[in-house]
Amino acid sequence: MSVYLHDIPLPQARARFIQALKDADLDKILGTESVDLDEGAVGRVLAQPVWAKLSSPHYHASAMDGFALRADDIAGATATFPVSLEVDWQADYVDTGDPMPAWANAVMPIEQVEALDERGEAAADVRHPHLIRLRTALPPWSYIRPMGEDIVATQLVLPSGQVLRPVDLGALAASGQTTILVCRRPDVAILPTGTELVPIGQNVKPGDIIEYNSIVLAGQVRQWGGNPHRFPITPDSYEQLRQRIQQAADENDLVLLNAGSSAGSEDFSAHLVSELGQLLVHGVAVRPGHPVILGMLRRSSAAKQAGTLVPIIGIPGYPVSAALTGEIFVEPLLALWLGRMPYEPDEVTATMTRKVTSPAGDDDYLRVVAGRVGARLLAAPLSRGAGVITSLVKADGIVILRRGIQGLEAGSEVTVRLYRPAKELERTIFAIGSHDMTLDLLAQYLSERGRRLVSANVGSQGGLVALRRGEAHLAGTHLLDAQTGEYNLSYIRQFLPETPVCLVTWVGREQGLLVRKNNPKQIKSLQDLARSDVSFINRQRGAGTRVLLDFHLQKLGIGPEAVTGYAQEEYTHLAVAAAVASERADCGLGITAAARALDLDFIPLFNERYDLAIPCEYLPTDLLLPLFDLMHDVGFRKAVASLPGYDVSQMGNIVLQCS
Amino acid sequence: MSVYLHDIPLPQARARFIQALKDADLDKILGTESVDLDEGAVGRVLAQPVWAKLSSPHYHASAMDGFALRADDIAGATATFPVSLEVDWQADYVDTGDPMPAWANAVMPIEQVEALDERGEAAADVRHPHLIRLRTALPPWSYIRPMGEDIVATQLVLPSGQVLRPVDLGALAASGQTTILVCRRPDVAILPTGTELVPIGQNVKPGDIIEYNSIVLAGQVRQWGGNPHRFPITPDSYEQLRQRIQQAADENDLVLLNAGSSAGSEDFSAHLVSELGQLLVHGVAVRPGHPVILGMLRRSSAAKQAGTLVPIIGIPGYPVSAALTGEIFVEPLLALWLGRMPYEPDEVTATMTRKVTSPAGDDDYLRVVAGRVGARLLAAPLSRGAGVITSLVKADGIVILRRGIQGLEAGSEVTVRLYRPAKELERTIFAIGSHDMTLDLLAQYLSERGRRLVSANVGSQGGLVALRRGEAHLAGTHLLDAQTGEYNLSYIRQFLPETPVCLVTWVGREQGLLVRKNNPKQIKSLQDLARSDVSFINRQRGAGTRVLLDFHLQKLGIGPEAVTGYAQEEYTHLAVAAAVASERADCGLGITAAARALDLDFIPLFNERYDLAIPCEYLPTDLLLPLFDLMHDVGFRKAVASLPGYDVSQMGNIVLQCS
Repeated sequence: MSVYLHDIPLPQARARFIQALKDADLDKILGTESVDLDEGAVGRVLAQPVWAKLSSPHYHASAMDGFALRADDIAGATATFPVSLEVDWQADYVDTGDPMPAWANAVMPIEQVEALDERGEAAADVRHPHLIRLRTALPPWSYIRPMGEDIVATQLVLPSGQVLRPVDLGALAASGQTTILVCRRPDVAILPTGTELVPIGQNVKPGDIIEYNSIVLAGQVRQWGGNPHRFPITPDSYEQLRQRIQQAADENDLVLLNAGSSAGSEDFSAHLVSELGQLLVHGVAVRPGHPVILGMLRRSSAAKQAGTLVPIIGIPGYPVSAALTGEIFVEPLLALWLGRMPYEPDEVTATMTRKVTSPAGDDDYLRVVAGRVGARLLAAPLSRGAGVITSLVKADGIVILRRGIQGLEAGSEVTVRLYRPAKELERTIFAIGSHDMTLDLLAQYLSERGRRLVSANVGSQGGLVALRRGEAHLAGTHLLDAQTGEYNLSYIRQFLPETPVCLVTWVGREQGLLVRKNNPKQIKSLQDLARSDVSFINRQRGAGTRVLLDFHLQKLGIGPEAVTGYAQEEYTHLAVAAAVASERADCGLGITAAARALDLDFIPLFNERYDLAIPCEYLPTDLLLPLFDLMHDVGFRKAVASLPGYDVSQMGNIVLQCS
Repeated sequence: MSVYLHDIPLPQARARFIQALKDADLDKILGTESVDLDEGAVGRVLAQPVWAKLSSPHYHASAMDGFALRADDIAGATATFPVSLEVDWQADYVDTGDPMPAWANAVMPIEQVEALDERGEAAADVRHPHLIRLRTALPPWSYIRPMGEDIVATQLVLPSGQVLRPVDLGALAASGQTTILVCRRPDVAILPTGTELVPIGQNVKPGDIIEYNSIVLAGQVRQWGGNPHRFPITPDSYEQLRQRIQQAADENDLVLLNAGSSAGSEDFSAHLVSELGQLLVHGVAVRPGHPVILGMLRRSSAAKQAGTLVPIIGIPGYPVSAALTGEIFVEPLLALWLGRMPYEPDEVTATMTRKVTSPAGDDDYLRVVAGRVGARLLAAPLSRGAGVITSLVKADGIVILRRGIQGLEAGSEVTVRLYRPAKELERTIFAIGSHDMTLDLLAQYLSERGRRLVSANVGSQGGLVALRRGEAHLAGTHLLDAQTGEYNLSYIRQFLPETPVCLVTWVGREQGLLVRKNNPKQIKSLQDLARSDVSFINRQRGAGTRVLLDFHLQKLGIGPEAVTGYAQEEYTHLAVAAAVASERADCGLGITAAARALDLDFIPLFNERYDLAIPCEYLPTDLLLPLFDLMHDVGFRKAVASLPGYDVSQMGNIVLQCS
C-alpha cells in the first residue's frame, strides 16, 4: 500500500490491525509468569482460572470463644431447668478459630455459660471450670464455622482475566495458593522523534517544543499494565531513526513511534515502517489524531526472536492526538495481551450547552466538562485544538461524534464517556462570564474544599445570557452602566428579567493599558490608541472590559475605525497580555494582574467593581456553601489582596438579595 | 478509659480519632518531596498548586505546513483573481510548529499554494519556489497557534490535591515544570499477631489459620498511596508484641495491628495500646468489624522523632472485618495525609431480592451482588459471615444499613456503594436454582466472553420461584416428576404458569452416594440410610436431589425418621461432600464431581437430566448470547465432558421453545 496519508474509518483501521496481529499469532496473551502472592500482585491479571486447593476453613472451627459440646446433651435446658455438663468429658473450652473436638457438634458462647468449681461456686478460671451450667438449648452446628463455609476445595476462586484487587489476594491465599500465574507485562518502547523536540528541563527558544508526549504515553502504558521504555529523542535523521526503530522492535513487544507533527516527518515514519516491515494503515478518520500509523515490524537477526513480527503504532505529535491515540489503539492492545477486558468508561447522558460542528468523515472526539446545574446534567465543549493538552486535563469526559454526524445543536442529548467518577460531576461549580485571575485562586481554594470550579470565559454579558439559559451556577460580571455609573444592576434587569438573582461583590480591581516593558511606544492614555503607530488588541463583544473601552472611547470621540487592531479580539486578560508580550499588538486594555503575570508595564486608568451574579435557586445548595465561606475567610481574602491591583474590602457584600 | 470492648457508634469513633489526630498535629499532609516529572509521578498527589512558569506554545507557532505571509497582502485573492507572492520577501515556508516570522500574521497551508519557479512553471521544490500563487484570502492569525493558546504563564495548571494522571504530566511539562512537589507517601506498619497464624505456603493442620490479612491490608495501603511494611507474624506473647508495636511506631507513620479474632487476643492489644500510649476507642458499632481499636502510641527515645505520637488502628482478625476496617478507617486517614479527597464510590439504586435483618445498634455493611434483570436493577445479599472473604470478592458493592435500621423487606429500594464500574453490572448474568459444578466452568468461559455469572444456590424449586419473581435470568433445575418420570416440565407448569419459559438441556449427570475413601461403613445403596450406625447429610427442601431422595425413599418404604441426619441440610453438592469428608456425616446424595473434588468414594445410583429454564423475555438479549454459543462450542463441551459423571450429548437441546 501507499505510504501517503489516506484516512480510513476507525473500525476498518482496527480490523486491519487486528487481522495482522492474528496472522502473526499476536492476538492473545503474550506470556505468563509466576509471582508470589503478596501485595505486589495487586493489578496483575490472572493468566488462568484459579481453583481452590484447600477449603476455608479447612477444618470445623469454633466461631466463638466458648465451650464445645454435643447439642443433644443440652436439648432440654431452659432458664428454670438448667443442664450441667462436666468439663473435659462433656464440654471443652475452645477459642474462636479453634478446631472442634471430633465428638462435639455445637459451641456455647462463654457469655452464656455459668462456670462452676467443685463446690458448685463460680470458678476462678472460667475457661477451665469443673462444671458448666447452661440455661438454653442449641441446634446442632450452632456457632461453628463448618469446613468449606467460605471456600470448598476444587471450586472456582477467580476466573482468568481477573485484575487482582487486595481482597482477591485474600481469597487466593485462603484457597491454598502461594504463587499465582499472571500475564507477563508487555514491554513497550516509546520513541519520541523530531529535531524540534527538547527534553524537559532545558531552556527553550522559539521553535523548540518541550517533549512530553513520551511521559504521557509511558504513564498510560504503565497504568494499563505494560512496562514502558522511553527512548531518547531521535532527531529527523532517516538512518538514525531506522536504527532506533529496529532496536526498539528487537527488544520490545510494541513500538510507539511518536512522530513530529508535520506531514513531512510523518512520511518519514511511514516510509520507515514500510522498509522495516509492513505499513497497514496510514491515516485514521479520527479527530484529533488522524495521522495515525499502524504497521508490523520484523525483528532483525540480532534479536532473540529473530524474524518474528512486532506491531508499531505511529502516534501523532500533537499532545491531545497522542493521548487519545493511546486510548484508542494502545489500551485495547494491552488488554488483549494481558487477557483482561478492555477498559470501558462509565457513561452519562448530558445536554450540550453549545452548538458544535464536526467533519462528517471523521469520528470526532470532543472533550467536554460536565456538571449538574439545577436539574440538568450539562456538557460544555472545551477547546478543539489538538495542541491544547489542558483540554484533556480539564475534560470530565469525551463525546464521540461518529462519522456521518456533521454537528450537534445546543440542547442536544449526548453520551459522555467519563474520565472521572460520575459522583464528582455533582461537585462541579460552573462559573461563566468575565475572566478574572482571582478565579484561578478560587479554583485552588475550592478544590481543597471538595469542589471543582470550571470557568468558561464568554465575557460579562455572555455570562448573564448563560445564567438565563440555566447553563452555569454563577457569572462574573463588571458591566458599567454609562447612564447611571452603576455596575451590573441594570444589565441584570435587562438580561435576566425573569430570573431571581443574587448579586454579591467579589473584588474591586484596576483596569488599565498593558504595554511592553519600558513602554517603548510611550503610550500614556486611551488617546494614544488613535495613533497610527500604535496597534491595539481588543476584547470580544460583551466583555465588561470592552464595554469600558467603548464607553471611554466614545467620551473621547475616538471611533473604532481610528484604532488599529480594534477588530482583533481575545477572550481573556491573559490572552491580551500574551498578545502584547509577543508583539502581536502594542497594547491592550486589561487588569494589573495580567500585566504582572507576563512582566508587562501597566498604565492604570480606572477602578471597577467585579461582582458575582448567582441565580437564587442555587443559593441554598450545599454545592455553593464553600464559595460563600471563602468570601469571609481571612486566608483567602489575604491571598486575593496580595495579587496586584485587587481590593477585597467589599468582598462578600450583597448588592442584590434574594427575597 | 477502660480497655474492655465497648462498642460506640461509628461517627463518634471517627470524631474521637480525628480529634486525637488534630491534637497531635497529625490531621494534615505529613510531608512533601520533590520528584522528577516522569511516568513514575502517576498516582502521586500534588502538594501545592502548580502555576505555569512558561506559556504553551511559548511563541507564535505555525499550525500547518505552509507559507507564512501577511494577511493584508492577499486580501483580494480569489479563484479567478489569484495573488502571487515572492518567496523570501513576502512569504516564507514554515513547518508545523515552526515559529512565525515577526513580520507575518497568517499561514497558507501548502495544499492551497501553487508553487512556481522563475519560468512560472510548477516548482521542483514546493518548499522553496520562486513565487507562490494563492487563490483565496485569509483572516489575520489563520493557521497560527498563538503564544499561550494552551497555557498562559502564571495561570493555575493544577490545584494541590490533584492525583496525577498521565495527561496531567503533559500539562505540567508544557507549563515549564521539571520536578514537582508531591505529598510524601505515609509509611504504614502492618503487624499480624496470633499464635494460630501460619504464613502462606506452609502446610496447615486443624486450628492453623493462614495469615493473609496482612497481604490484603498491604495491597489496600499501596493502592491508597501509602508504603506498606509487613511485619512477620507475632505470636501471642505480651512482651514480644510490646516490642514489635514500639518498633513499628518508631519507624512508621501508622501502625495497623491485626489482632487474633478471639476476645482474649483483642484485650491483649487494647492493654498494649494503653500501655504504649492512649486507647481512644475499643469497639465500634459496625458489622462486620466491631472489635476495632483506635489509639495513639508514643515514639520511644530510640526513635528519630522521639516522643511524638503515632496513630494505631487495631484491626479485627476476621478477613471481611479486616478489609472493611481498612476501607472505613485507613483509607480516609491516608487521604488526609496525602491531601487528596477521600475515596467515594459511585452509587446506584437497586431493589433487594431478599429480606435481611440487621442489629439495630450497628452500622451494618451488607455485601451484595447487583445486576439488571429485565427492567430492574437487583441487589442480592451475599453471606453475612465475617470470615467469608469470598463474599467481598464476589460483591458488586455494599449496602449500609445504618444504626437504627433493623432490617429490610424484600423489594426495598437500597443504595449500593459500588466496587465495580456501574457499566459492569449490565454484563452480569444471574443464575439461580440448583447447584451444579459445571456452573463454575461456565463462569470461567463466560468471563472470557465479557459476562459475569453470578450463581445463587437455592435448589431447583427455589430457582423456579425466583424466575417467577423476576430475580434471575436463568434457573438450573433437575426436578423429577414421580408420576410421569419426566424432568422439569410439570414443575415449570406448576411454578411458572404465566411466564413463557424456554427449557434447554444443560447436562446429563450421575447422582449417587458420597462416602468416605474406601467406604469404611460399607454403604451400598439407599437402604443403608436406615442403618442406625450410618449418618446422612441431606439437601434442603426444594432441591432436585432432595426430590430424588424422597422419591426413592418412599419407593423403598423408608420414612425420614428412620434416616439419622435427615434434618441436617446443606445447600450445595460440595457442601454435602465437605460434610462427609470432615466426618460430620457418613454419606450424602450428590453428584460424582463433588465426590472426586474432595477425594471421596462414589456409589452411582441414578442418571438425571439437568436443564436451564430461561424466561423468554431474556432470550433475544445480547447478554445471554455467549451462553448459547458455549452450548455448541466444542472446547467448552469437551471441558464439561471431562468432569467425572457428566454427559454433554444433549447439551443445547431445546425441550420447551418460546413461541
